[in-house]
Amino acid sequence: MAEKEKVVLAYSGGLDTSVIVRWLQTEKNLDVIAICGNVGQDEKDLEWVKEKALKMGAIHSEALDMREEYCNTIVKSAIQANGEYEGVYPLLSALSRPVISKHLVDIAHQYGATTIAHGCTGKGNDQVRFETCIHALDPSLKIIAPVREWDLTTRESEMDWASQHDVPIPVTKKKPYSIDDNLWGRAIECGVLEDSWNQPPADIWTMTVDPTEAPDTPEFVEISFEQGVPSAINGEKMDLLPLVIEANKIAGRNGYGRIDMIEDRVVGIKSRECYECPGSMLLIEAHKALESITLDRETLKLKQHMDQEWASQVYYGYWFSQVRNAIDAFNAYTQKFVSGTVRFKLYKGSLLMDGIKSDYSLYDESLATYGEGDTFDRTASKGFIDLHSLMTSTWSKAQGPASGNQPA
Amino acid sequence: MAEKEKVVLAYSGGLDTSVIVRWLQTEKNLDVIAICGNVGQDEKDLEWVKEKALKMGAIHSEALDMREEYCNTIVKSAIQANGEYEGVYPLLSALSRPVISKHLVDIAHQYGATTIAHGCTGKGNDQVRFETCIHALDPSLKIIAPVREWDLTTRESEMDWASQHDVPIPVTKKKPYSIDDNLWGRAIECGVLEDSWNQPPADIWTMTVDPTEAPDTPEFVEISFEQGVPSAINGEKMDLLPLVIEANKIAGRNGYGRIDMIEDRVVGIKSRECYECPGSMLLIEAHKALESITLDRETLKLKQHMDQEWASQVYYGYWFSQVRNAIDAFNAYTQKFVSGTVRFKLYKGSLLMDGIKSDYSLYDESLATYGEGDTFDRTASKGFIDLHSLMTSTWSKAQGPASGNQPA
Amino acid sequence: MAEKEKVVLAYSGGLDTSVIVRWLQTEKNLDVIAICGNVGQDEKDLEWVKEKALKMGAIHSEALDMREEYCNTIVKSAIQANGEYEGVYPLLSALSRPVISKHLVDIAHQYGATTIAHGCTGKGNDQVRFETCIHALDPSLKIIAPVREWDLTTRESEMDWASQHDVPIPVTKKKPYSIDDNLWGRAIECGVLEDSWNQPPADIWTMTVDPTEAPDTPEFVEISFEQGVPSAINGEKMDLLPLVIEANKIAGRNGYGRIDMIEDRVVGIKSRECYECPGSMLLIEAHKALESITLDRETLKLKQHMDQEWASQVYYGYWFSQVRNAIDAFNAYTQKFVSGTVRFKLYKGSLLMDGIKSDYSLYDESLATYGEGDTFDRTASKGFIDLHSLMTSTWSKAQGPASGNQPA
Amino acid sequence: MAEKEKVVLAYSGGLDTSVIVRWLQTEKNLDVIAICGNVGQDEKDLEWVKEKALKMGAIHSEALDMREEYCNTIVKSAIQANGEYEGVYPLLSALSRPVISKHLVDIAHQYGATTIAHGCTGKGNDQVRFETCIHALDPSLKIIAPVREWDLTTRESEMDWASQHDVPIPVTKKKPYSIDDNLWGRAIECGVLEDSWNQPPADIWTMTVDPTEAPDTPEFVEISFEQGVPSAINGEKMDLLPLVIEANKIAGRNGYGRIDMIEDRVVGIKSRECYECPGSMLLIEAHKALESITLDRETLKLKQHMDQEWASQVYYGYWFSQVRNAIDAFNAYTQKFVSGTVRFKLYKGSLLMDGIKSDYSLYDESLATYGEGDTFDRTASKGFIDLHSLMTSTWSKAQGPASGNQPA
Repeated sequence: MAEKEKVVLAYSGGLDTSVIVRWLQTEKNLDVIAICGNVGQDEKDLEWVKEKALKMGAIHSEALDMREEYCNTIVKSAIQANGEYEGVYPLLSALSRPVISKHLVDIAHQYGATTIAHGCTGKGNDQVRFETCIHALDPSLKIIAPVREWDLTTRESEMDWASQHDVPIPVTKKKPYSIDDNLWGRAIECGVLEDSWNQPPADIWTMTVDPTEAPDTPEFVEISFEQGVPSAINGEKMDLLPLVIEANKIAGRNGYGRIDMIEDRVVGIKSRECYECPGSMLLIEAHKALESITLDRETLKLKQHMDQEWASQVYYGYWFSQVRNAIDAFNAYTQKFVSGTVRFKLYKGSLLMDGIKSDYSLYDESLATYGEGDTFDRTASKGFIDLHSLMTSTWSKAQGPASGNQPA
Repeated sequence: MAEKEKVVLAYSGGLDTSVIVRWLQTEKNLDVIAICGNVGQDEKDLEWVKEKALKMGAIHSEALDMREEYCNTIVKSAIQANGEYEGVYPLLSALSRPVISKHLVDIAHQYGATTIAHGCTGKGNDQVRFETCIHALDPSLKIIAPVREWDLTTRESEMDWASQHDVPIPVTKKKPYSIDDNLWGRAIECGVLEDSWNQPPADIWTMTVDPTEAPDTPEFVEISFEQGVPSAINGEKMDLLPLVIEANKIAGRNGYGRIDMIEDRVVGIKSRECYECPGSMLLIEAHKALESITLDRETLKLKQHMDQEWASQVYYGYWFSQVRNAIDAFNAYTQKFVSGTVRFKLYKGSLLMDGIKSDYSLYDESLATYGEGDTFDRTASKGFIDLHSLMTSTWSKAQGPASGNQPA
Repeated sequence: MAEKEKVVLAYSGGLDTSVIVRWLQTEKNLDVIAICGNVGQDEKDLEWVKEKALKMGAIHSEALDMREEYCNTIVKSAIQANGEYEGVYPLLSALSRPVISKHLVDIAHQYGATTIAHGCTGKGNDQVRFETCIHALDPSLKIIAPVREWDLTTRESEMDWASQHDVPIPVTKKKPYSIDDNLWGRAIECGVLEDSWNQPPADIWTMTVDPTEAPDTPEFVEISFEQGVPSAINGEKMDLLPLVIEANKIAGRNGYGRIDMIEDRVVGIKSRECYECPGSMLLIEAHKALESITLDRETLKLKQHMDQEWASQVYYGYWFSQVRNAIDAFNAYTQKFVSGTVRFKLYKGSLLMDGIKSDYSLYDESLATYGEGDTFDRTASKGFIDLHSLMTSTWSKAQGPASGNQPA
Repeated sequence: MAEKEKVVLAYSGGLDTSVIVRWLQTEKNLDVIAICGNVGQDEKDLEWVKEKALKMGAIHSEALDMREEYCNTIVKSAIQANGEYEGVYPLLSALSRPVISKHLVDIAHQYGATTIAHGCTGKGNDQVRFETCIHALDPSLKIIAPVREWDLTTRESEMDWASQHDVPIPVTKKKPYSIDDNLWGRAIECGVLEDSWNQPPADIWTMTVDPTEAPDTPEFVEISFEQGVPSAINGEKMDLLPLVIEANKIAGRNGYGRIDMIEDRVVGIKSRECYECPGSMLLIEAHKALESITLDRETLKLKQHMDQEWASQVYYGYWFSQVRNAIDAFNAYTQKFVSGTVRFKLYKGSLLMDGIKSDYSLYDESLATYGEGDTFDRTASKGFIDLHSLMTSTWSKAQGPASGNQPA
């Protein structure tokens, strides 16, 4: 008898991907390898997930801790790029997909699987990111997205199919929201949030306390960086993974890191999204502040444009790409001297820069001071301004106010 | 006897510009016209300023209320451009200079003055902006910047000169900070702030309460816009000037709107700046939120770049310029449908989007929903992703992971 | 008997669209309205096309002259935007699709058709542009692209089907290239060109003579513009349509306007394309030259970025879009003073700027001259340079050469 | 007796810098070290220049061959960045200043000189570039620009001063143009060129033959690159210096490489410039063509923006800077696979791409072909277009044509 082809499934243990295990076995006649990745999501014990897959007949299952790799490669790049899509969203789901995809492809190679399957819906971003990343890593792999194919379009039909096919049905009620989370933050959508005028309900938030319940005294926190990578909190050196976890705690307990926004998905629609990103927002704000003192004006201006581009490309699923690599090379140079410490004041959901220092500071107090020790040559300003204003005075004479045209 | 030439002076009533009145009379042999502009600064009664100038022998003096003009032309443009230099600073000083410059030039024309004088220092941005604006409005006018020329470089020497030349000396002590304020916010620099590691002292803030002293219950505020211009607060229609004043009050009493940053000046140095911008930050955040629902993905991405450029050009003093006019024309088109309402939750220094609606919303719930009424065709996604991922899969085969190169 | 639904077909009279007429009738049971648009392609007499459709049973057919509308709206915008995709391709096919789409939609509305059909292949750009434009003009219209659906994938199977279904078969051999042309230029692809190392064969070119066969004496041509629109050639005022035709002749007879390039299609692949664009390249070069003297440095720099964006959006099929409208509003402002005359020397495929003038010139000879009449204040330069160089000298001390780091 | 301070002078042997040698000795009481750099200018024998300086009392003089260093660092970067200011000017003067500056600073350090002097005028770009580069390399060095200081503003006054101070006066007439040249091209300005409507006179061109006098048969040339650096011409491997020299010859003898443009100087004015850049334009065009086949769509689009920025920063004199280094890091990554060969047809001033190939080509004939072997899945296009067009169809319904608003 011919051996069955193998499929590697991104498996979470929930209803959808459990049904998919069975569906791949029965409808597609495939041997299933179920992989569950730990990228720092709230659900921490993943052994039961692995066991559940094996009980359903998966020929192999693994629960992989990807957190360090995720931090030290992808999250690190995101910090250096101040990665925020449309100027706001810290890209948490977009960032976890590449590391998971890489492991799915590695496992497929290891076990000779020809296909990778995922449980993403047909209108979200994640299908795009998984498939684009997988195609980029190995264009010869086939991809199955059961949720786009099957007709189990309601929870009821899915439950029915599950009980008919001996799929363990969770006793818990379906949550009213769709959640994705990892160490870089937490995304909440669906339900009442779909009406953009509705207030985000209080029960959607879990990583951040409500600002009204945060401590009554401000908390000061110092974030230190070496070459653009966070290296210490309050003077205590840490690797990036524990540092991110600590940053989530500090910002979360002060109610900082909530986002409510309208966002443009890859597939051409707008959606309303709520996010909790206490650690990521804290670290990115600290990083931006440190760049403001260690990068010069022209680099800052160009990098603002590059950061926007980086976030768009990563959001669109182009993590493994020429263009992201090229921007990261730009960033790598810029980060050589982004070392120093930023002090913030956190208080009931607010964040304020409180102080900043760097051994490589381009802020030169002797040039900036209005007090003693001033070394700035103010006689230079006249000549500077005379030439600086030539562009607009020439324009004025030919086409502008001085030629009789009114200022617009 | 030949008539003296006339100079129009931007006059504030303080020590510096009072000394300048006398200095222009005695050292430059000029007739002085002293103009004091009301752009919404804290100092509201400007009649005494006018009187003081006349007492010192100014041949003419006026206290002009420029607030409406400032709001309805410049502030309006700034809101539509989400004007924030280096992504942070709402440009308050940069915005007031053009309207003041325009009046100085108008007065010069009206009184036949050949020269305009200002009291700006030789290392700041404002000298650049005043002179660039004035040159753009009338390249034939001469400009005198006494502070760059004279040798009264300490407060003591200036006080001595003042008493020798019969200039009224203020009894108040010199303030430890340098302040510039108008209805769009308040800038604080100098003193202990010059050490970037120092905490901003509590006494620098006047437009915003300390977050710890803000009310214990969140305040909800609804900002409405018509075609990109704020038109109502909490449903009450207002002209822009009273609306900005109200926005300052609401945000200020909730401790929202403080900034502490390192900034790149036009003259090539970095400086440390503290700002209070309660109203401007509130209105710009509301405007950005409304744009996220009324502008499409490509327009938003391009406008983010244009906004950055607008802020840079205005910061550099190029208000009256071809390039700012051109960006404003771009903005004018984009704002045609930026109408609707944004609801924010303000609480002890923090701000969170709470709801958003627009009659011209591009957020289509029937496309976005995961519930009933879904009109999105999820079968389209496969084809979309297959072509979307061709760029990186082709790259992968030729130059990337699949060709044996490791992902960077 | 129920009335059949109606379909509007973009009809060329060739084999493909003739087969489609019949296919829509027999396979889709639709009444066909066949529309042939004159956008200035080489084939000028379109009456036979209309007759052919009617003979095949089309319930209505029209040959529409869209040339003036095309010139006065779309081509005009393209000139003002210096529209060249990837810095090279003058977008000729991308520009004609919107005007054709608009007429197809208008006809559909006029005749109550529910569907629009086109004969584009499934891997090109034009299917994307037609459908995107049609959806933008009326999202409720259905679209049929028979070539993507049917299994007539070889010329033989198509010929067989045609003879079986009484479709007139052209006696001419299939051309070895795929051609698309209109008054803005001519595109050639396929055949030996698909090997990117192959030389473009001589027989692909028809709008331009071979440079070796062009006249032996240079031809000088003066192009005049009013507000960014070409208005005269060699001093003779013309409307844009005859002017473009004349520009094609002049440049074409001098062998100017050939392009051979690798281009990135919307659908994610690169293709090798040859183009002939004598008139469009001549007019765009003239327009760029005139902008160099009438737009200031900052506007030019920003517009270079906007032009790139404009070309990308139009290439992607987003003619009817918020973003293209917004860029056109930017351009409209910038073009207010782009009036004047440019003189070029054309010679055997080469083009050289020979002189330029404008009543609104920002080139000020009295500032630029090294001869008598110089008004530039060279003493200003020292101060200018002292501040201009502060950014890099400060950097040098903290992070650069002067700090011991070697220049990269 | 106290030792005199030393000044290092950028010395060309011409009248201006010869007068400066004496002026620095007599007016500034400095010991002069005269340095003449060979950057590939037309004047090849520089020994006489060195001798002339020594005869005038320079305490040291050197003629340094900087050509290889110039090519292998700066020109190489310029090729990779497709360095063309305002999309046209290949930056030839802007590129030679950094290498000369570096040697001036090195010599100053070697001989303990405190000051560097140059002969640039007070309204050009070169003063800005020299001084910005020198300040960036060593902010402590003083700079003297005699031409900005002295009152020898006419050639007559300069000749008089020269004969009074025993400066050898050249017997040749002053040339009617101001020329700067090096191996990357040749700049011509002044004289009749200052009227922008005047035709460039035939006698200004020396590196390129007049197209009418070029050979009557086209010349084909193949340029090969390795990692973005030209490595061979017509299959013959060469180092970059001889390769650039050869490229100048090949393009020059075919009349290719002339530029006539209006350009925006750093100091705020426009100027009319003529350039000859046969080799640089040939190599940059070849490089762009090779990038079109080896860089993906998103990288190309972003790099077009980066190239523009690179050229601006270098033009402004910011060679030694954080921002240029950062862009070069971006470029370095992108160039890893820019290897291959481009074939051009040169003929009487015209250049046409004729073929292109690369082992790392992203052009995939099997995806692009319309013939046999097509691997493109055309069924994917429908889904792609359906989502691609969602942005504009959604817009249309809410704000655009379908909502009743007319297309702009």
